[in-house]
Amino acid sequence: MTYCVGLKLNEGLVLLSDTRTNAGLDNISCYRKMFLWEEPGERVIAIMTAGSLSVTQTTIARLDEAIDDEYADETTSIMRAPNMLRVATIIGDTLCRTRREISDQCRDLKQQASASMIVAGQRKGGDMRLFLIYPEGNFIEATEDTPFLQIGEHKYGKPILDRVVTPETSLADAQKAVLLSMDSTLRSNLSVGMPLDLAVIRNDDCRVSSQRRIQDGDPDFAEMSATWSAALRDSFTKVTL
Amino acid sequence: MTYCVGLKLNEGLVLLSDTRTNAGLDNISCYRKMFLWEEPGERVIAIMTAGSLSVTQTTIARLDEAIDDEYADETTSIMRAPNMLRVATIIGDTLCRTRREISDQCRDLKQQASASMIVAGQRKGGDMRLFLIYPEGNFIEATEDTPFLQIGEHKYGKPILDRVVTPETSLADAQKAVLLSMDSTLRSNLSVGMPLDLAVIRNDDCRVSSQRRIQDGDPDFAEMSATWSAALRDSFTKVTL
Repeated sequence: MTYCVGLKLNEGLVLLSDTRTNAGLDNISCYRKMFLWEEPGERVIAIMTAGSLSVTQTTIARLDEAIDDEYADETTSIMRAPNMLRVATIIGDTLCRTRREISDQCRDLKQQASASMIVAGQRKGGDMRLFLIYPEGNFIEATEDTPFLQIGEHKYGKPILDRVVTPETSLADAQKAVLLSMDSTLRSNLSVGMPLDLAVIRNDDCRVSSQRRIQDGDPDFAEMSATWSAALRDSFTKVTL
Repeated sequence: MTYCVGLKLNEGLVLLSDTRTNAGLDNISCYRKMFLWEEPGERVIAIMTAGSLSVTQTTIARLDEAIDDEYADETTSIMRAPNMLRVATIIGDTLCRTRREISDQCRDLKQQASASMIVAGQRKGGDMRLFLIYPEGNFIEATEDTPFLQIGEHKYGKPILDRVVTPETSLADAQKAVLLSMDSTLRSNLSVGMPLDLAVIRNDDCRVSSQRRIQDGDPDFAEMSATWSAALRDSFTKVTL
Protein backbone atom coordinates (compact mmCIF):
# COMPACT_ATOMS: atom_id res chain seq x y z
CA MET A 1 0.00 0.00 0.00
CA THR A 2 0.93 3.64 -0.09
CA TYR A 3 -0.21 7.02 1.06
CA CYS A 4 0.41 10.12 -1.04
CA VAL A 5 -1.32 13.47 -0.67
CA GLY A 6 -1.12 16.67 -2.68
CA LEU A 7 -2.51 20.11 -1.78
CA LYS A 8 -3.12 22.99 -4.17
CA LEU A 9 -3.19 26.22 -2.21
CA ASN A 10 -3.10 29.85 -3.19
CA GLU A 11 0.54 30.03 -2.06
CA GLY A 12 1.68 26.86 -3.76
CA LEU A 13 1.65 23.07 -4.01
CA VAL A 14 2.51 20.79 -1.07
CA LEU A 15 3.25 17.11 -1.71
CA LEU A 16 3.94 14.24 0.67
CA SER A 17 4.53 10.54 -0.01
CA ASP A 18 5.63 7.51 1.98
CA THR A 19 8.14 4.96 0.66
CA ARG A 20 6.85 1.54 1.66
CA THR A 21 6.31 -1.05 -1.02
CA ASN A 22 5.18 -4.53 -0.19
CA ALA A 23 4.46 -7.77 -2.00
CA GLY A 24 2.68 -9.48 0.85
CA LEU A 25 3.33 -8.56 4.46
CA ASP A 26 6.54 -10.60 4.49
CA ASN A 27 8.18 -8.75 1.64
CA ILE A 28 8.59 -5.09 2.48
CA SER A 29 10.87 -2.67 0.66
CA CYS A 30 11.59 1.03 0.50
CA TYR A 31 11.07 2.82 -2.81
CA ARG A 32 10.78 6.50 -3.53
CA LYS A 33 7.29 7.34 -4.79
CA MET A 34 7.86 11.03 -5.53
CA PHE A 35 9.51 12.04 -8.81
CA LEU A 36 10.45 15.58 -9.73
CA TRP A 37 11.44 17.25 -12.99
CA GLU A 38 12.31 20.91 -13.40
CA GLU A 39 13.65 23.48 -15.76
CA PRO A 40 13.98 26.11 -13.04
CA GLY A 41 11.90 29.19 -13.64
CA GLU A 42 10.29 27.63 -16.70
CA ARG A 43 8.59 24.40 -15.65
CA VAL A 44 8.26 22.07 -12.68
CA ILE A 45 6.49 18.71 -12.63
CA ALA A 46 6.00 16.30 -9.73
CA ILE A 47 4.53 12.81 -9.84
CA MET A 48 3.59 10.68 -6.85
CA THR A 49 2.71 7.03 -7.43
CA ALA A 50 0.58 4.30 -5.84
CA GLY A 51 0.01 0.74 -7.01
CA SER A 52 2.04 -2.06 -8.56
CA LEU A 53 5.71 -1.16 -8.54
CA SER A 54 6.28 -2.71 -11.96
CA VAL A 55 3.60 -0.44 -13.43
CA THR A 56 4.79 2.74 -11.71
CA GLN A 57 8.50 2.16 -12.38
CA THR A 58 7.92 1.32 -16.03
CA THR A 59 5.67 4.35 -16.47
CA ILE A 60 8.27 6.70 -14.94
CA ALA A 61 11.03 5.08 -17.01
CA ARG A 62 9.02 5.57 -20.21
CA LEU A 63 8.33 9.22 -19.34
CA ASP A 64 12.08 9.71 -18.81
CA GLU A 65 12.89 7.90 -22.03
CA ALA A 66 10.45 10.14 -23.90
CA ILE A 67 12.08 13.26 -22.43
CA ASP A 68 15.53 12.10 -23.55
CA ASP A 69 14.44 10.91 -26.98
CA GLU A 70 16.09 12.81 -29.80
CA TYR A 71 12.71 13.18 -31.51
CA ALA A 72 10.96 14.35 -28.33
CA ASP A 73 8.22 16.86 -29.04
CA GLU A 74 5.33 18.52 -27.25
CA THR A 75 3.10 15.50 -27.71
CA THR A 76 5.56 12.96 -26.22
CA SER A 77 7.72 14.73 -23.62
CA ILE A 78 6.33 16.14 -20.39
CA MET A 79 9.21 18.67 -20.49
CA ARG A 80 8.03 20.01 -23.84
CA ALA A 81 4.26 19.85 -23.40
CA PRO A 82 2.80 23.36 -23.73
CA ASN A 83 0.81 23.24 -20.48
CA MET A 84 0.04 21.10 -17.44
CA LEU A 85 -3.13 19.69 -19.01
CA ARG A 86 -1.00 18.16 -21.79
CA VAL A 87 1.48 16.94 -19.19
CA ALA A 88 -1.34 15.11 -17.39
CA THR A 89 -2.55 13.69 -20.71
CA ILE A 90 0.90 12.32 -21.61
CA ILE A 91 1.28 10.77 -18.16
CA GLY A 92 -2.25 9.31 -18.26
CA ASP A 93 -1.66 7.80 -21.69
CA THR A 94 1.69 6.33 -20.64
CA LEU A 95 0.22 4.91 -17.45
CA CYS A 96 -2.75 3.37 -19.27
CA ARG A 97 -0.56 1.74 -21.93
CA THR A 98 1.88 0.37 -19.34
CA ARG A 99 -0.87 -0.94 -17.08
CA ARG A 100 -2.58 -2.68 -20.01
CA GLU A 101 0.61 -4.35 -21.15
CA ILE A 102 1.55 -5.59 -17.70
CA SER A 103 -2.00 -6.71 -16.90
CA ASP A 104 -1.93 -8.65 -20.13
CA GLN A 105 1.31 -10.34 -19.07
CA CYS A 106 -0.26 -11.20 -15.70
CA ARG A 107 -3.44 -12.60 -17.24
CA ASP A 108 -2.38 -16.23 -16.98
CA LEU A 109 -1.96 -15.86 -13.23
CA LYS A 110 -5.32 -14.10 -12.91
CA GLN A 111 -3.45 -11.24 -11.26
CA GLN A 112 -4.17 -7.59 -11.82
CA ALA A 113 -1.55 -4.89 -12.03
CA SER A 114 -2.72 -1.35 -11.53
CA ALA A 115 -1.53 2.07 -10.42
CA SER A 116 -2.68 5.64 -9.94
CA MET A 117 -0.74 8.88 -9.75
CA ILE A 118 -0.90 12.42 -8.47
CA VAL A 119 0.59 14.96 -10.89
CA ALA A 120 1.40 18.49 -9.79
CA GLY A 121 3.25 21.35 -11.38
CA GLN A 122 3.33 24.63 -13.21
CA ARG A 123 4.50 25.90 -16.55
CA LYS A 124 5.70 29.50 -16.63
CA GLY A 125 2.79 31.76 -17.52
CA GLY A 126 0.24 29.11 -16.60
CA ASP A 127 -1.54 28.22 -13.38
CA MET A 128 -0.40 25.63 -10.88
CA ARG A 129 -2.34 22.41 -11.45
CA LEU A 130 -2.89 19.28 -9.39
CA PHE A 131 -4.32 16.11 -10.97
CA LEU A 132 -5.20 12.61 -9.86
CA ILE A 133 -4.63 10.16 -12.72
CA TYR A 134 -6.64 6.95 -12.63
CA PRO A 135 -5.31 3.56 -13.81
CA GLU A 136 -7.34 4.00 -17.01
CA GLY A 137 -5.46 7.22 -17.79
CA ASN A 138 -8.34 9.64 -17.25
CA PHE A 139 -7.97 12.21 -14.52
CA ILE A 140 -9.61 14.68 -12.17
CA GLU A 141 -8.25 17.96 -10.89
CA ALA A 142 -8.14 19.71 -7.51
CA THR A 143 -10.36 22.79 -7.27
CA GLU A 144 -11.13 25.60 -4.82
CA ASP A 145 -13.83 23.42 -3.24
CA THR A 146 -11.57 20.39 -2.90
CA PRO A 147 -7.99 21.60 -2.73
CA PHE A 148 -6.41 18.23 -1.98
CA LEU A 149 -6.05 14.86 -3.68
CA GLN A 150 -4.99 11.54 -2.16
CA ILE A 151 -3.96 8.14 -3.52
CA GLY A 152 -3.42 4.83 -1.75
CA GLU A 153 -4.59 4.42 1.83
CA HIS A 154 -6.45 7.71 2.00
CA LYS A 155 -9.12 7.20 4.64
CA TYR A 156 -7.29 7.41 7.96
CA GLY A 157 -5.71 10.72 7.04
CA LYS A 158 -8.71 12.42 5.47
CA PRO A 159 -10.57 13.77 8.55
CA ILE A 160 -7.72 16.15 9.50
CA LEU A 161 -7.47 17.46 5.92
CA ASP A 162 -11.24 17.95 5.73
CA ARG A 163 -11.09 20.03 8.88
CA VAL A 164 -8.08 22.29 8.34
CA VAL A 165 -7.20 22.62 4.65
CA THR A 166 -8.63 25.42 2.50
CA PRO A 167 -7.05 27.23 -0.45
CA GLU A 168 -6.07 30.02 1.99
CA THR A 169 -4.03 27.66 4.20
CA SER A 170 -0.40 28.84 4.48
CA LEU A 171 2.40 26.63 3.18
CA ALA A 172 3.69 26.17 6.75
CA ASP A 173 0.28 25.02 8.01
CA ALA A 174 -0.19 22.88 4.92
CA GLN A 175 3.03 20.98 5.62
CA LYS A 176 1.84 20.37 9.18
CA ALA A 177 -1.53 19.19 7.89
CA VAL A 178 -0.14 16.63 5.43
CA LEU A 179 2.36 15.35 8.00
CA LEU A 180 -0.39 14.92 10.62
CA SER A 181 -2.53 13.24 7.98
CA MET A 182 0.38 10.88 7.29
CA ASP A 183 0.95 10.37 11.02
CA SER A 184 -2.62 9.06 11.47
CA THR A 185 -2.14 6.76 8.49
CA LEU A 186 1.22 5.40 9.68
CA ARG A 187 -0.34 4.52 13.04
CA SER A 188 -3.19 2.57 11.50
CA ASN A 189 -1.76 0.88 8.42
CA LEU A 190 1.44 -1.15 8.49
CA SER A 191 1.73 -1.03 4.72
CA VAL A 192 2.45 2.71 4.84
CA GLY A 193 5.92 3.46 6.18
CA MET A 194 8.77 5.87 6.77
CA PRO A 195 10.83 7.57 5.42
CA LEU A 196 8.67 10.31 3.92
CA ASP A 197 9.29 12.67 1.02
CA LEU A 198 7.95 16.20 1.40
CA ALA A 199 8.13 18.82 -1.36
CA VAL A 200 6.85 22.36 -1.73
CA ILE A 201 6.41 24.24 -5.01
CA ARG A 202 5.65 27.92 -4.44
CA ASN A 203 3.26 29.58 -6.86
CA ASP A 204 5.16 31.04 -9.84
CA ASP A 205 8.53 29.67 -8.65
CA CYS A 206 8.32 27.07 -11.43
CA ARG A 207 10.88 25.01 -9.53
CA VAL A 208 10.95 22.73 -6.49
CA SER A 209 11.06 25.43 -3.81
CA SER A 210 12.00 22.97 -1.07
CA GLN A 211 12.19 19.24 -0.53
CA ARG A 212 13.04 17.12 2.42
CA ARG A 213 13.30 13.44 3.28
CA ILE A 214 11.99 12.69 6.76
CA GLN A 215 13.68 9.58 8.16
CA ASP A 216 12.27 7.22 10.75
CA GLY A 217 13.09 8.75 14.13
CA ASP A 218 13.31 12.30 12.77
CA PRO A 219 13.16 14.40 15.96
CA ASP A 220 10.97 17.16 14.48
CA PHE A 221 8.43 14.69 13.14
CA ALA A 222 8.46 12.70 16.39
CA GLU A 223 7.89 15.83 18.44
CA MET A 224 5.11 17.01 16.14
CA SER A 225 3.45 13.62 16.42
CA ALA A 226 3.73 13.57 20.22
CA THR A 227 2.44 17.15 20.54
CA TRP A 228 -0.49 16.32 18.31
CA SER A 229 -1.36 13.20 20.31
CA ALA A 230 -1.22 15.15 23.56
CA ALA A 231 -3.29 17.99 22.08
CA LEU A 232 -5.88 15.51 20.80
CA ARG A 233 -6.21 13.88 24.20
CA ASP A 234 -6.46 17.33 25.76
CA SER A 235 -9.16 18.30 23.24
CA PHE A 236 -10.99 15.10 24.06
CA THR A 237 -11.29 16.09 27.70
CA LYS A 238 -12.79 19.46 26.68
CA VAL A 239 -15.64 17.87 24.77
CA THR A 240 -18.75 17.19 26.83
CA LEU A 241 -21.59 14.91 25.93
CA MET B 1 -22.33 1.02 3.94
CA THR B 2 -22.45 1.13 7.71
CA TYR B 3 -20.37 2.02 10.70
CA CYS B 4 -20.73 0.11 13.95
CA VAL B 5 -18.27 0.11 16.84
CA GLY B 6 -18.19 -1.81 20.11
CA LEU B 7 -15.93 -1.21 23.14
CA LYS B 8 -15.23 -3.67 25.92
CA LEU B 9 -14.04 -1.76 28.96
CA ASN B 10 -13.55 -2.68 32.59
CA GLU B 11 -16.73 -0.78 33.46
CA GLY B 12 -18.87 -2.20 30.68
CA LEU B 13 -19.72 -2.47 27.00
CA VAL B 14 -20.42 0.57 24.80
CA LEU B 15 -22.05 0.10 21.40
CA LEU B 16 -22.83 2.55 18.62
CA SER B 17 -24.34 2.01 15.18
CA ASP B 18 -25.62 4.17 12.37
CA THR B 19 -28.84 3.43 10.46
CA ARG B 20 -28.14 4.10 6.79
CA THR B 21 -28.77 1.36 4.28
CA ASN B 22 -28.27 1.92 0.61
CA ALA B 23 -28.67 0.01 -2.59
CA GLY B 24 -26.76 2.39 -4.81
CA LEU B 25 -26.43 6.07 -3.95
CA ASP B 26 -29.93 6.77 -5.26
CA ASN B 27 -31.69 4.36 -2.95
CA ILE B 28 -31.10 5.27 0.68
CA SER B 29 -33.13 3.98 3.59
CA CYS B 30 -33.04 3.99 7.37
CA TYR B 31 -32.84 0.63 9.16
CA ARG B 32 -31.92 -0.09 12.74
CA LYS B 33 -28.66 -2.09 12.88
CA MET B 34 -28.56 -2.68 16.63
CA PHE B 35 -30.60 -5.52 18.11
CA LEU B 36 -30.93 -6.20 21.83
CA TRP B 37 -32.20 -9.16 23.84
CA GLU B 38 -32.32 -9.35 27.60
CA GLU B 39 -33.56 -11.36 30.52
CA PRO B 40 -32.73 -8.63 33.02
CA GLY B 41 -30.21 -9.65 35.63
CA GLU B 42 -29.64 -12.99 33.89
CA ARG B 43 -28.51 -12.34 30.35
CA VAL B 44 -28.06 -9.52 27.85
CA ILE B 45 -27.09 -9.87 24.20
CA ALA B 46 -26.53 -7.15 21.61
CA ILE B 47 -25.91 -7.58 17.88
CA MET B 48 -24.83 -4.87 15.44
CA THR B 49 -24.93 -5.64 11.73
CA ALA B 50 -23.15 -4.57 8.53
CA GLY B 51 -23.63 -5.85 5.01
CA SER B 52 -26.48 -6.94 2.78
CA LEU B 53 -29.78 -6.11 4.42
CA SER B 54 -31.37 -9.33 3.20
CA VAL B 55 -28.65 -11.35 4.93
CA THR B 56 -28.73 -9.41 8.20
CA GLN B 57 -32.53 -9.25 8.45
CA THR B 58 -32.93 -12.95 7.69
CA THR B 59 -30.22 -13.86 10.19
CA ILE B 60 -31.86 -11.80 12.95
CA ALA B 61 -35.29 -13.22 12.05
CA ARG B 62 -33.92 -16.77 12.29
CA LEU B 63 -32.30 -16.07 15.65
CA ASP B 64 -35.66 -14.73 16.91
CA GLU B 65 -37.49 -17.71 15.46
CA ALA B 66 -35.08 -20.08 17.23
CA ILE B 67 -35.65 -18.26 20.54
CA ASP B 68 -39.44 -18.61 20.20
CA ASP B 69 -39.37 -22.19 18.96
CA GLU B 70 -41.13 -24.59 21.32
CA TYR B 71 -38.20 -27.00 21.04
CA ALA B 72 -35.58 -24.27 21.65
CA ASP B 73 -32.58 -25.54 23.57
CA GLU B 74 -29.09 -24.41 24.49
CA THR B 75 -27.71 -25.34 21.08
CA THR B 76 -30.29 -23.37 19.05
CA SER B 77 -31.42 -20.36 21.12
CA ILE B 78 -29.12 -17.50 22.04
CA MET B 79 -31.33 -16.95 25.11
CA ARG B 80 -30.63 -20.49 26.35
CA ALA B 81 -26.97 -20.87 25.37
CA PRO B 82 -24.89 -21.48 28.52
CA ASN B 83 -22.34 -18.74 27.82
CA MET B 84 -21.40 -15.95 25.41
CA LEU B 85 -19.02 -18.16 23.44
CA ARG B 86 -21.97 -20.43 22.56
CA VAL B 87 -24.06 -17.36 21.75
CA ALA B 88 -21.38 -16.22 19.28
CA THR B 89 -21.24 -19.72 17.79
CA ILE B 90 -25.01 -19.87 17.23
CA ILE B 91 -24.99 -16.41 15.63
CA GLY B 92 -21.96 -17.30 13.47
CA ASP B 93 -23.57 -20.52 12.27
CA THR B 94 -26.86 -18.79 11.50
CA LEU B 95 -25.09 -15.97 9.65
CA CYS B 96 -22.97 -18.39 7.61
CA ARG B 97 -25.97 -20.55 6.61
CA THR B 98 -28.07 -17.50 5.66
CA ARG B 99 -25.25 -15.88 3.70
CA ARG B 100 -24.61 -19.09 1.76
CA GLU B 101 -28.26 -19.55 0.86
CA ILE B 102 -28.69 -15.97 -0.31
CA SER B 103 -25.37 -15.96 -2.20
CA ASP B 104 -26.54 -19.12 -3.93
CA GLN B 105 -29.77 -17.38 -4.95
CA CYS B 106 -27.75 -14.43 -6.26
CA ARG B 107 -25.33 -16.58 -8.24
CA ASP B 108 -27.10 -16.14 -11.56
CA LEU B 109 -26.62 -12.38 -11.30
CA LYS B 110 -22.97 -12.78 -10.30
CA GLN B 111 -23.80 -10.75 -7.20
CA GLN B 112 -22.44 -11.45 -3.77
CA ALA B 113 -24.41 -11.10 -0.56
CA SER B 114 -22.42 -10.86 2.62
CA ALA B 115 -22.58 -9.51 6.16
CA SER B 116 -20.60 -9.27 9.37
CA MET B 117 -21.73 -8.65 12.93
CA ILE B 118 -20.54 -7.42 16.29
CA VAL B 119 -21.91 -9.46 19.20
CA ALA B 120 -21.68 -8.20 22.77
CA GLY B 121 -23.16 -9.33 26.03
CA GLN B 122 -22.92 -11.09 29.34
CA ARG B 123 -24.47 -14.11 31.00
CA LYS B 124 -24.85 -13.91 34.77
CA GLY B 125 -21.76 -15.40 36.40
CA GLY B 126 -19.72 -15.05 33.22
CA ASP B 127 -17.53 -12.29 31.82
CA MET B 128 -18.64 -9.61 29.42
CA ARG B 129 -17.62 -10.61 25.89
CA LEU B 130 -17.33 -8.71 22.61
CA PHE B 131 -17.00 -10.58 19.30
CA LEU B 132 -16.68 -9.70 15.64
CA ILE B 133 -18.35 -12.37 13.51
CA TYR B 134 -17.11 -12.74 9.95
CA PRO B 135 -19.37 -13.62 6.99
CA GLU B 136 -18.01 -17.18 7.16
CA GLY B 137 -19.27 -17.53 10.73
CA ASN B 138 -15.87 -17.62 12.45
CA PHE B 139 -15.10 -14.85 14.90
CA ILE B 140 -12.51 -12.89 16.85
CA GLU B 141 -12.82 -11.33 20.29
CA ALA B 142 -11.85 -8.00 21.83
CA THR B 143 -9.01 -8.24 24.36
CA GLU B 144 -7.16 -6.00 26.83
CA ASP B 145 -4.72 -5.03 24.05
CA THR B 146 -7.46 -4.25 21.54
CA PRO B 147 -10.58 -3.31 23.47
CA PHE B 148 -12.66 -2.25 20.47
CA LEU B 149 -14.09 -3.85 17.33
CA GLN B 150 -15.51 -2.15 14.27
CA ILE B 151 -17.51 -3.27 11.23
CA GLY B 152 -18.37 -1.43 8.02
CA GLU B 153 -16.61 1.81 7.19
CA HIS B 154 -14.07 1.59 10.01
CA LYS B 155 -11.09 3.59 8.80
CA TYR B 156 -12.08 7.23 9.23
CA GLY B 157 -13.07 6.68 12.84
CA LYS B 158 -10.16 4.50 13.95
CA PRO B 159 -7.46 7.11 14.72
CA ILE B 160 -9.45 8.66 17.58
CA LEU B 161 -10.17 5.23 19.10
CA ASP B 162 -6.50 4.22 18.80
CA ARG B 163 -5.53 7.34 20.69
CA VAL B 164 -8.01 7.48 23.56
CA VAL B 165 -9.57 4.06 24.26
CA THR B 166 -8.04 1.67 26.80
CA PRO B 167 -9.77 -0.86 29.06
CA GLU B 168 -9.59 1.75 31.86
CA THR B 169 -11.57 4.35 29.87
CA SER B 170 -14.72 5.40 31.75
CA LEU B 171 -18.15 4.73 30.27
CA ALA B 172 -18.72 8.48 29.93
CA ASP B 173 -15.46 8.97 28.02
CA ALA B 174 -16.13 5.85 25.98
CA GLN B 175 -19.46 7.21 24.78
CA LYS B 176 -17.72 10.42 23.76
CA ALA B 177 -15.02 8.44 21.95
CA VAL B 178 -17.43 6.34 19.88
CA LEU B 179 -19.54 9.38 19.02
CA LEU B 180 -16.47 11.34 17.89
CA SER B 181 -15.34 8.30 15.91
CA MET B 182 -18.78 8.24 14.27
CA ASP B 183 -18.64 12.01 13.71
CA SER B 184 -15.43 11.67 11.64
CA THR B 185 -17.03 8.85 9.65
CA LEU B 186 -20.26 10.73 8.99
CA ARG B 187 -18.27 13.68 7.62
CA SER B 188 -16.30 11.53 5.20
CA ASN B 189 -18.68 8.82 4.01
CA LEU B 190 -22.16 9.59 2.68
CA SER B 191 -23.20 5.97 3.06
CA VAL B 192 -23.04 6.27 6.85
CA GLY B 193 -25.92 8.32 8.24
CA MET B 194 -27.98 9.55 11.18
CA PRO B 195 -29.87 8.66 13.34
CA LEU B 196 -27.52 6.74 15.63
CA ASP B 197 -28.21 4.04 18.21
CA LEU B 198 -26.08 4.14 21.36
CA ALA B 199 -26.26 1.50 24.08
CA VAL B 200 -24.35 0.88 27.29
CA ILE B 201 -24.22 -2.42 29.20
CA ARG B 202 -22.56 -2.02 32.60
CA ASN B 203 -20.44 -4.90 33.84
CA ASP B 204 -22.57 -7.38 35.82
CA ASP B 205 -25.82 -5.50 35.14
CA CYS B 206 -26.78 -8.27 32.69
CA ARG B 207 -29.26 -5.87 31.12
CA VAL B 208 -29.19 -2.89 28.76
CA SER B 209 -28.13 -0.25 31.27
CA SER B 210 -28.98 2.63 28.93
CA GLN B 211 -29.86 3.19 25.33
CA ARG B 212 -30.51 6.25 23.27
CA ARG B 213 -31.37 7.12 19.70
CA ILE B 214 -29.58 10.23 18.51
CA GLN B 215 -31.55 11.96 15.77
CA ASP B 216 -30.19 14.17 13.04
CA GLY B 217 -29.92 17.67 14.53
CA ASP B 218 -29.66 16.39 18.12
CA PRO B 219 -28.39 19.50 19.97
CA ASP B 220 -26.01 17.58 22.29
CA PHE B 221 -24.41 15.71 19.40
CA ALA B 222 -24.19 18.88 17.30
CA GLU B 223 -22.53 20.76 20.14
CA MET B 224 -20.10 17.93 20.81
CA SER B 225 -19.20 17.83 17.14
CA ALA B 226 -18.68 21.60 16.97
CA THR B 227 -16.61 21.66 20.16
CA TRP B 228 -14.44 18.84 18.85
CA SER B 229 -13.89 20.58 15.52
CA ALA B 230 -12.90 23.80 17.29
CA ALA B 231 -10.62 21.91 19.69
CA LEU B 232 -8.97 20.10 16.79
CA ARG B 233 -8.30 23.32 14.96
CA ASP B 234 -6.97 24.81 18.19
CA SER B 235 -4.73 21.77 18.69
CA PHE B 236 -3.51 22.16 15.13
CA THR B 237 -2.24 25.66 15.85
CA LYS B 238 -0.29 24.35 18.87
CA VAL B 239 1.69 21.86 16.81
CA THR B 240 4.94 23.19 15.40
CA LEU B 241 6.97 21.68 12.63
